[in-house]
Amino acid sequence: MNIQAYMETLGKQARQAARALVSASTKQKNGALLAMADLIERSAEVLKAENAKDLENGKNNGLDAAMLDRLALTDAGIAGIAEGLRQVAALQDPIGEVTDMSYRPSGIQVGKMRVPLGVVGIIYESRPNVTADAAALCLKSGNAAILRGGSEAAFSNQALAKCIKQGLKQAGLPETAVQVVETTDREAVGHLISMPEFVDVIIPRGGKSLIERISNNARVPVIKHLDGICHVYIDDAADFTKAIDIAVNAKTHRYGVCNAMETLLVAESQAEKVLPELAKRYAEKGVELRGCEKTRAIIDAIPATDEDWATEYLAPILSIKVVEDVDAAMDHIAQYSSGHTESIITENFSTSRRFLAQVDSSSVMVNASTRFADGFEYGLGAEIGISTDKFHARGPVGLEGLTSQKYIVLGDGNIRQ
Amino acid sequence: MNIQAYMETLGKQARQAARALVSASTKQKNGALLAMADLIERSAEVLKAENAKDLENGKNNGLDAAMLDRLALTDAGIAGIAEGLRQVAALQDPIGEVTDMSYRPSGIQVGKMRVPLGVVGIIYESRPNVTADAAALCLKSGNAAILRGGSEAAFSNQALAKCIKQGLKQAGLPETAVQVVETTDREAVGHLISMPEFVDVIIPRGGKSLIERISNNARVPVIKHLDGICHVYIDDAADFTKAIDIAVNAKTHRYGVCNAMETLLVAESQAEKVLPELAKRYAEKGVELRGCEKTRAIIDAIPATDEDWATEYLAPILSIKVVEDVDAAMDHIAQYSSGHTESIITENFSTSRRFLAQVDSSSVMVNASTRFADGFEYGLGAEIGISTDKFHARGPVGLEGLTSQKYIVLGDGNIRQ
Repeated sequence: MNIQAYMETLGKQARQAARALVSASTKQKNGALLAMADLIERSAEVLKAENAKDLENGKNNGLDAAMLDRLALTDAGIAGIAEGLRQVAALQDPIGEVTDMSYRPSGIQVGKMRVPLGVVGIIYESRPNVTADAAALCLKSGNAAILRGGSEAAFSNQALAKCIKQGLKQAGLPETAVQVVETTDREAVGHLISMPEFVDVIIPRGGKSLIERISNNARVPVIKHLDGICHVYIDDAADFTKAIDIAVNAKTHRYGVCNAMETLLVAESQAEKVLPELAKRYAEKGVELRGCEKTRAIIDAIPATDEDWATEYLAPILSIKVVEDVDAAMDHIAQYSSGHTESIITENFSTSRRFLAQVDSSSVMVNASTRFADGFEYGLGAEIGISTDKFHARGPVGLEGLTSQKYIVLGDGNIRQ
Repeated sequence: MNIQAYMETLGKQARQAARALVSASTKQKNGALLAMADLIERSAEVLKAENAKDLENGKNNGLDAAMLDRLALTDAGIAGIAEGLRQVAALQDPIGEVTDMSYRPSGIQVGKMRVPLGVVGIIYESRPNVTADAAALCLKSGNAAILRGGSEAAFSNQALAKCIKQGLKQAGLPETAVQVVETTDREAVGHLISMPEFVDVIIPRGGKSLIERISNNARVPVIKHLDGICHVYIDDAADFTKAIDIAVNAKTHRYGVCNAMETLLVAESQAEKVLPELAKRYAEKGVELRGCEKTRAIIDAIPATDEDWATEYLAPILSIKVVEDVDAAMDHIAQYSSGHTESIITENFSTSRRFLAQVDSSSVMVNASTRFADGFEYGLGAEIGISTDKFHARGPVGLEGLTSQKYIVLGDGNIRQ
């Protein structure tokens, strides 16, 4: 198999399908999504049989229990996939939305129309449900998709791909609107990210090293986030209960997620009040504390190093730093934050406004847990990823992040004077 | 001079200045712009003396009359630069705009805040007025700017840079908020486009080869357009007068501009009606016509080749193709358009809707001249370029294109359940 030629064929087909999708009606797109949901439910036995091959291979290849768990397609998992497709069908169609129409002195009427990006390439690991999720979000936003899942889920992904193709066909849409790459050769990824003529944007979903490799080598725009080094700052004017509740929730609600707090910053004036209570609460949850010198003068903690401030633990570990004031907190954030999410706990109006305006992260919060930084919590209805870049989509990316806006001009024979 | 070290110093200084600009007030930014305008007017004699050195060098280096004309700083030109700065000061400040605030079931209030991109690098040729224009737009949108003008305007640009720095200083803003690269060595450009740690976006303004080189080599996002191969399509249902007026205006209003029509598409049913009148009108203006076979059966024209359909003439030359219908027109556009601007002339409601929805260009028009595709005509108040990319800003780029939106979340101690 010539992998380059194969990927170019997928690219050409995707580009063609994208042109057809631009004029697909909302009804057609939703029809395809609902048909896919039905087909996936009806194919449960086939899906589980194909998934069993992946699980068998996974065991033979020494995948650990957590990875096998992510890989497994259960009846509940299959029902969840179908439900996800129906939820995307129920979302409002972002395409064709016209905004800001206004008349100009020349007599022309100018506004913006929301349109698909074109072709979206998605590169992801293990979980087969991403195949259906990503296909649904791309289709609903009028984009053709080329999906490259992990080799460990190859049989499951191809079985899902069959249902997706069948659903597209039933709705009268091109089957090439969603293509799941069949080869598991790594070379395919290299080609997928280097075809600006066929692919408009790449979204990598997976570990940091995968995302870093892709974004360093891509020749098309990448929607990505690398790290979630999120901070909570307990200000001089913090309410004690809010501070404790949020600092505990942001760290301990879930550990392995990108919107978990990794560093707690505490105003000097608050340290003696909040740190002992927090130490107690974290101890109950088994969270290891690493603190600066001032922190360790108040509570027991391992000495924190510079590396701690720059680490996304994704684990029951927290670094704590006592800072002079909000400016020192914002300086620390500017130096170490990954630009994901930061929250201030304060009752002071002016301090909250400064923090909101000056902290340069994709989500900036006041008196709320960083764990809310999430497409569903924000009401986007879906989430294809969280972007820590400033260009194009920023923060949780839903359907809108997969679209662009073009200008439209309506006239009555207007010419430029 | 170690050029890499020099550019890194500019980058570091710009990054620092950008942090200060985030908290600069609208009053401060406008104060700096108005101070720059005054300083430039008061420095007219110095500016003309420095400009004379550039003109002298230009003559010695064999610049043609048109280039020398673009390079010259006259009293009227200097007044125009000052006026431009005052106009930008009068525009609404885009930074801090909060939109879409809504409460979620969890109790958090979520919305978006408009924020600067950070550091903008602008690479441009000859015209010294771009130095002031670009500085003004970056400053107003809260971005630090690194400006790299053409070597032929080096003395003029540095003289303008002095006024800009002085204006920043008077307003209490860091002088490094706008830096004009002092070296004319080409190596500087290579470093400027390869420092993602210091520069967030590059905007090249100039000829196609400059833009192509920069966008192929940049390691940061580029806001650019390469070509303006704009089409007007005269539909079956076109109004005769509107068709003639717009087809003449779109080609002949100005020739060397990116929003001029380069190819005219005519529905077969209209060809015998409109082409003879158009041939007469174009002949009066001295426009050379290149036509397909069907065109040449009706009017005199040079045979058009495939290359003609793909050429941005920027000259009194027009290619004409007779097509079967709107679908054939849209197929031609999909194949040859540069994604800048296309216009349909039609009185048919459904055809207009299809053309608006399906043509994938940054501006799509009905019954209006392509010459309207312009930031000022669209009411953006300013224009830093026109983007034919789909990612981030698309179409004429004003202040908003130099900004990003982050999410803000306001709570009352909310934690995730």
